[in-house]
Amino acid sequence: MVETFEEISPADFFYRNRELAGFTSPTRAIFSSVRELVENALDASDLHGVPSEVYIRLSEEDSGVGEGEVYVLRVEDNGSGVPARHIPSAFGQVLFGSKYKLKQARGTFGLGGTMAILYGQITTHKPVYVASSTGTSRTYEYKLMIDIQRNRPIVLDRKSHVNKTRWRGTVVEFSLEGDYLRAMPKILEYLKQTAVVTPYANITFVDPKGRLYRFSRVTTEMPPPPEETFPHPYGVDVETIQRFAKIADCKNMLDFMRKHFHRVSEKIAHEFLEYAGISEKKNPGKLRPQEVVRLVRKMKEFENFLPPRARCLSPLGEELLKAGILKELKPDFIAVSQRKPSAYSGHPFIVETAIAYGGGIPKEGDVLVYRFANRIPLLYDEASDVAVKVIKSMNWRTYKVSSEMPIAILVHLCSTKVPYKTVGKEFIADRPEVKKEILNGVREVARRLRRFLTRREHVERERRRLSVFSKYLPKIAEFSTGLAGEEEAPNIEALLRSVRKFEEGD
Amino acid sequence: MVETFEEISPADFFYRNRELAGFTSPTRAIFSSVRELVENALDASDLHGVPSEVYIRLSEEDSGVGEGEVYVLRVEDNGSGVPARHIPSAFGQVLFGSKYKLKQARGTFGLGGTMAILYGQITTHKPVYVASSTGTSRTYEYKLMIDIQRNRPIVLDRKSHVNKTRWRGTVVEFSLEGDYLRAMPKILEYLKQTAVVTPYANITFVDPKGRLYRFSRVTTEMPPPPEETFPHPYGVDVETIQRFAKIADCKNMLDFMRKHFHRVSEKIAHEFLEYAGISEKKNPGKLRPQEVVRLVRKMKEFENFLPPRARCLSPLGEELLKAGILKELKPDFIAVSQRKPSAYSGHPFIVETAIAYGGGIPKEGDVLVYRFANRIPLLYDEASDVAVKVIKSMNWRTYKVSSEMPIAILVHLCSTKVPYKTVGKEFIADRPEVKKEILNGVREVARRLRRFLTRREHVERERRRLSVFSKYLPKIAEFSTGLAGEEEAPNIEALLRSVRKFEEGD
Repeated sequence: MVETFEEISPADFFYRNRELAGFTSPTRAIFSSVRELVENALDASDLHGVPSEVYIRLSEEDSGVGEGEVYVLRVEDNGSGVPARHIPSAFGQVLFGSKYKLKQARGTFGLGGTMAILYGQITTHKPVYVASSTGTSRTYEYKLMIDIQRNRPIVLDRKSHVNKTRWRGTVVEFSLEGDYLRAMPKILEYLKQTAVVTPYANITFVDPKGRLYRFSRVTTEMPPPPEETFPHPYGVDVETIQRFAKIADCKNMLDFMRKHFHRVSEKIAHEFLEYAGISEKKNPGKLRPQEVVRLVRKMKEFENFLPPRARCLSPLGEELLKAGILKELKPDFIAVSQRKPSAYSGHPFIVETAIAYGGGIPKEGDVLVYRFANRIPLLYDEASDVAVKVIKSMNWRTYKVSSEMPIAILVHLCSTKVPYKTVGKEFIADRPEVKKEILNGVREVARRLRRFLTRREHVERERRRLSVFSKYLPKIAEFSTGLAGEEEAPNIEALLRSVRKFEEGD
Repeated sequence: MVETFEEISPADFFYRNRELAGFTSPTRAIFSSVRELVENALDASDLHGVPSEVYIRLSEEDSGVGEGEVYVLRVEDNGSGVPARHIPSAFGQVLFGSKYKLKQARGTFGLGGTMAILYGQITTHKPVYVASSTGTSRTYEYKLMIDIQRNRPIVLDRKSHVNKTRWRGTVVEFSLEGDYLRAMPKILEYLKQTAVVTPYANITFVDPKGRLYRFSRVTTEMPPPPEETFPHPYGVDVETIQRFAKIADCKNMLDFMRKHFHRVSEKIAHEFLEYAGISEKKNPGKLRPQEVVRLVRKMKEFENFLPPRARCLSPLGEELLKAGILKELKPDFIAVSQRKPSAYSGHPFIVETAIAYGGGIPKEGDVLVYRFANRIPLLYDEASDVAVKVIKSMNWRTYKVSSEMPIAILVHLCSTKVPYKTVGKEFIADRPEVKKEILNGVREVARRLRRFLTRREHVERERRRLSVFSKYLPKIAEFSTGLAGEEEAPNIEALLRSVRKFEEGD
């Protein structure tokens, strides 16, 4: 039997295995398409530092071949725009993009947008329309298809117009097969949760029935744009060192350490090189393989590197978290917490947690868990997610929580690199460092919930005691008054007040 | 702020996101490396049709840079061998391989082996050694590294020797960082389960302490080698049609349908083209885009295509399943079932299920679930797996099963394309068709377990009844004998036998 060997392009790989990227079924495909384009739109406006305006429209298309659910998806944003020369590759090629940096962004794989377009192409055989401008004097329009086998864009049409209004942003429109009716609840949930954690965004969605959903911004204050970082020495491998050594303009190791790694000052570089037994004057381009290996080893061992700085991260903040949850769930009690920055494999991250109780939270079923990563809601494959695993592993009786209580828990992880387990960004791998921070964060808010529940128990007990007093005391007073032959019963109000430990409404 | 756009190679993509492919931590990395190479080895001997001989050796390496867990992993097989000209790309390039066919194989992504080598390279900076022969007069040896940024092999050394013994097979050896002590239980479990479902394989594993684990074959009978199939019309998309139309040597649509699709006879092709309203004489290379779309649509709608043929699949079979489980778990009861072939998106699949009760199955904890896909055990991310979800969703009280009973359930899915959710092949997505077959398969064996448990209950009750009879009947007989003034008590054996409904040991 003869084996045939072949090379396939990355576009072909993800075409053949599109379920890896979240394009499993017509339902998931339409959800994933909306999601990927919305995330790109929000990243683009974050980058440009303007409050986001995202317009999404899904309309039914007369497919011309009888029954079948074909939709046109259009997404417009007011973000940074894509330079004309990059438009074909950015939308017609996988593994091409601006997301291959160490910075906090919704997109991480440089894959999702093109996958959505690719899915549209293989189900409808139609080109994608892209219009964009970076706010210069011209706007550009493209009609593209993807050569999947070669992973290259095919430009069918290209136009350029004068941009009088200096419009900036991107419009993407393409046709795809999908099952909107089934995807609808997830799409709406996705947009709702996105709006909660993106309070500076106006998100408008027009669905195939013409229904308009509008999520309006509550602030125009933008988070600082994501900052790019160098790799931290703890997270470096042999390949990283070699790449830097190749492109480095540094003549010696001291400069090399200072210029290419996160949080390495001259002083620390000096200390480290001495510790590693590598000469400061050595030319980084001339490191021998075994020296590179030793350098990496020593970087992992050296204890005096400063921890990754979280300045490049943009967590939600406790106020915003609280506001978002209050708006959505209207609970009786809420506690939020933002953990101190931590790091895994040299990537800084921050965990934020919240717990809410009662009010609008449904009583039936399991604890509600809301999961977010870099400000995007994660709605699928919950069972494998590290946050869900952590929450399940906790002994909730310690916190006076029982299974039938109306509880919601929110976990947000932001990082320059979220450790997703799937290309479809459904759930987060359980890195021990991340797990620990989530556990501590959830514990912290759970303890506050316990205090609230304990206090409420006291209040309840007190109320019952008072109600007994206030029921019998007047009768006793009346009886004793009669017995004593007095005319007027003593004032028992003062007495009742004195046994009241908690004020009403406390 | 200026965005920088760049293109990265697929090797670079999987290097940056190696947790997607199962290379999350030093523990997982060493497990995944062993696993990927073993699976390639078994696929190679399946392909060649010889009972597998797989030799795995992990040894500690003196890294020369102080403490640290560096191992040398060597895997030898007696499979088909890799032709010399393909060796560099097959081991030094991702998305290059022989697995991009529609056939049942352990490997599906053409990625795992190279990822293991890549991981070794970025942690130890050393080349991989590969020796192989396809049984010709020569063997070939290579020393390779991977140019990750370009996704190309770098050949450091190449030798060729005379192959006197006509040896056939492949040897791969490389160094990698890892945490064997933590990975050990999973590696051993993996090999044990692999041995159970590969009864024609001799698997030898020498671990870093020099301990030898040997899993010997119990049969030399090989399953038929996996057969390659064409795509079934139900699973086709626009891209598939276009690719075939481009390479097709057919002059008309009738030939096109017959030659490129699974289970399309001339008669069916004829019927279908009439149904689709496409002329039989049309040149497939001249289909207009809208015609291609219509063709795909009609293929999905047409009801007279035969279901995918399962001949290309190689399930375990009920006997083997039973033998494997009996050997491993020594249960009191076992039921196995092989479902009829089914299909999702045009890919044929077969589900096999087994349930075992009592005996060597541990009583504590949850139900044991063994998951297999194309004869490989899946050991991670159980919570998201379709089989586990199905098992959890069932109402087990219907089957007289309660949570503290010692139960083990096995589910094996074989298919020309297993719908994995991650590149690391940890778990299977819940395609509705697959879910349904698993559910029916588990129900079937669960019903047989219920019959066993019900019967055992009866037997138990009967035994108690009998024991009461056999205790008091002799006394009654004796007493009545005395009372009647008889000498000899009547024979009660016949009486006892008549009330005995079940034989001992039944």
